[in-house]
Amino acid sequence: MEAMKPPMIGEIVAVGTELLLGQIANTNARFLAEKLAQLGVDAYFQQAVGDNPSRLAESLKLALERSDLVLLSGGLGPTEDDLTKETVSKLLGRRLVPDPAVAERIREVLRGHRSPVVEKALAKQSLVPEGAAILPNSAGTAPGLVLDLPGKMLALLPGPPQELEPMVRDYLIPHLAAWLDGPSTQFARSFLRSRTIKFCGIGEPVVEEAVRDLLHGDNPTVAPYVSIGETHLRVTAKAASAERAVSLVENMVCAIASRRPLSEHIFGFDDDTLAGACGRRLREHGLSLCLAESITGGLVGHLVTEVAGSSDYFERGYVVYGNRSKSELLGVDPEMIRAHGAVSEEVALAMAHGALDRSGAGLALALTGIAGPGGASGAKPVGLTYIALVGRSFGQSGGETGVRECHRYVFAGERQLVKRRAAHRALTLLWLRLGRRE
Amino acid sequence: MEAMKPPMIGEIVAVGTELLLGQIANTNARFLAEKLAQLGVDAYFQQAVGDNPSRLAESLKLALERSDLVLLSGGLGPTEDDLTKETVSKLLGRRLVPDPAVAERIREVLRGHRSPVVEKALAKQSLVPEGAAILPNSAGTAPGLVLDLPGKMLALLPGPPQELEPMVRDYLIPHLAAWLDGPSTQFARSFLRSRTIKFCGIGEPVVEEAVRDLLHGDNPTVAPYVSIGETHLRVTAKAASAERAVSLVENMVCAIASRRPLSEHIFGFDDDTLAGACGRRLREHGLSLCLAESITGGLVGHLVTEVAGSSDYFERGYVVYGNRSKSELLGVDPEMIRAHGAVSEEVALAMAHGALDRSGAGLALALTGIAGPGGASGAKPVGLTYIALVGRSFGQSGGETGVRECHRYVFAGERQLVKRRAAHRALTLLWLRLGRRE
Repeated sequence: MEAMKPPMIGEIVAVGTELLLGQIANTNARFLAEKLAQLGVDAYFQQAVGDNPSRLAESLKLALERSDLVLLSGGLGPTEDDLTKETVSKLLGRRLVPDPAVAERIREVLRGHRSPVVEKALAKQSLVPEGAAILPNSAGTAPGLVLDLPGKMLALLPGPPQELEPMVRDYLIPHLAAWLDGPSTQFARSFLRSRTIKFCGIGEPVVEEAVRDLLHGDNPTVAPYVSIGETHLRVTAKAASAERAVSLVENMVCAIASRRPLSEHIFGFDDDTLAGACGRRLREHGLSLCLAESITGGLVGHLVTEVAGSSDYFERGYVVYGNRSKSELLGVDPEMIRAHGAVSEEVALAMAHGALDRSGAGLALALTGIAGPGGASGAKPVGLTYIALVGRSFGQSGGETGVRECHRYVFAGERQLVKRRAAHRALTLLWLRLGRRE
Repeated sequence: MEAMKPPMIGEIVAVGTELLLGQIANTNARFLAEKLAQLGVDAYFQQAVGDNPSRLAESLKLALERSDLVLLSGGLGPTEDDLTKETVSKLLGRRLVPDPAVAERIREVLRGHRSPVVEKALAKQSLVPEGAAILPNSAGTAPGLVLDLPGKMLALLPGPPQELEPMVRDYLIPHLAAWLDGPSTQFARSFLRSRTIKFCGIGEPVVEEAVRDLLHGDNPTVAPYVSIGETHLRVTAKAASAERAVSLVENMVCAIASRRPLSEHIFGFDDDTLAGACGRRLREHGLSLCLAESITGGLVGHLVTEVAGSSDYFERGYVVYGNRSKSELLGVDPEMIRAHGAVSEEVALAMAHGALDRSGAGLALALTGIAGPGGASGAKPVGLTYIALVGRSFGQSGGETGVRECHRYVFAGERQLVKRRAAHRALTLLWLRLGRRE
């Protein structure tokens, strides 16, 4: 009989004139949509509407007609513009009554900030529609509210993401899950799970080509995404149990991970970063890393030190933006800079060797290039970058002479993008080198 | 008579199942909403709907009933899931006909990538609804389409932001502006303009208190936003001419800028960055900057070098993540590190002095701290950071002994946030110091 029940249909209605003016992005809709999907709640529509009671009522009526679960976000604040609670109460014919527990909680948060303005805000925010369940707000004063309607559920959530997100995670999702799992539910329970496989050092067309036969699958689905220097594949499956959904996802992930030429280009999953993957390989080899950055100005060091524990393998970096510091700090011969230019293979390798010798690190990575918009000359366009990697032997790598390589790129885009592409490519080279067995 | 015409009402309908699943944020809606607002087009609602023809038709019908201008984004791609064009044509009773110019353009873009798949895509993407105006796509193959309906306008736009944004800026906005300015328009023309004032070194509550009387104004409106280490005020005005809207905004900006204690905390406007503002002040004083970064790992150098031309005043930075490099590169006495710890006022000042002496720069900024999650000890919590600024005298600053200051902070948040807060605070200290006259 279970299989005959329909899935629950959810709809998100974001309230706020600033959305209609394009002053903020609707990040709440994305967050809520993802959480609903994970819970196996289907979605057909989303809406955004301004702080206007009659149009808010119009949106809400439409959502309640066509969906089983409606999530309203925004308009719960203390000011007169905040009308969500009032509009909902009026539409549903429920009285707004003061809730002593809510009032007490607001009083606590506002302790030390009492004033007539605060008193007024407190009075407004402690009113709740009769019969509403309260969702605590750990980061602000507006509580979330859940209203059980015949065969439907309506939740009112605060607009600021730092208030909405913990409330949804800690209170709304468990509340909904319990209801969906309860004996009286009229909806089928299902679970959506997904995992992102992250690739570097391989172009998006090559990744797509390798999984083309999987891109039109129904369950799991496989979808490609591109970010700077990386390609991601997102695998998503739906099933009647969380375990089954996870196993559908994991089987597909394994199948993709074993395909050529993908396998050796997977640096991580989900929230993994390329810098974190480099850190893991450095640890495996017992190697430390030193940086010599010109074009990136410190960005590679910033990325490396985003990883907790990176001080175990990263001791120093040289930001040698000018020619003088390239010579003074890394011993690059000024004559070499004059002869070949600071953006050259010779200087990139000399920077890397200088950093390696002076730091005592196992590997040194050096970058020199033209970020633009200025600095280009006839033969050297904006985006031209040399990345050198030198170091002592490790594993079977480099044989007796050690590691010594230099690569030339011309990165496209504006200054900021060129810097990011250069930094990601440097980490990609490092990660690939540390993974090579020869 | 002009004043009697109503404003045009616009509505954005974003198409794509990935939006309903929360897999991507609806950045197109924000971009389009901002552009419509600037054009003086009002908005009451936004919608998002999946790649489903009957529900797309339902959303579109609703939008055309209640709005004058409907912008549909997404679903113009070459695959069978992309149904926007087909659904619109059916709903409006217009035939889809091949457009030779569009076909030729697609053929050009795809030159060298011919295959049966490409041929099929080409055939589908070169079909346009009869009577549609074409908006060129500079970054992809799907053209934008504009349909003139009785008293309404409907535009179909591609989903990928890198295709949609230039198309809207270069073709759709001029098209709409010409139409709104034309003799036959039934809508009032209005213009929305806004400017963002950016503050640092002053808390958001202080900024809000100083402009409290302006926060509930109608035209212009003044709205506060907070980002890491910065407070922004956005001033927005609407008027019947662009000149009038600009002058309303500028008058308000001047009024705010002259208020105490705000005036000396404005580092820029709109897209200005704090690092760029520091660069301007360094240039004014003819000073160069050197960095000694521990906790931030290169982030300050990265921010400084995001600014084009920063090589004029930034020559080098030392990323001294470990204790050994603090001593070897900057001459910090190992005994001092043992006695006070690497995260101490003494070491921060020694780092700054070491960097100043070795680099020959006019000013040196040094940061040492505990980013977490590890590294804390009894008296030294995660987030504890010392920032030192030392340098030679400039203007009347520092008298004969020069600049020498060190500040202690405990930044809240996770590792990544602590690093960002520390970097922004360092730039704030630098900017304030360069602006002080004493």
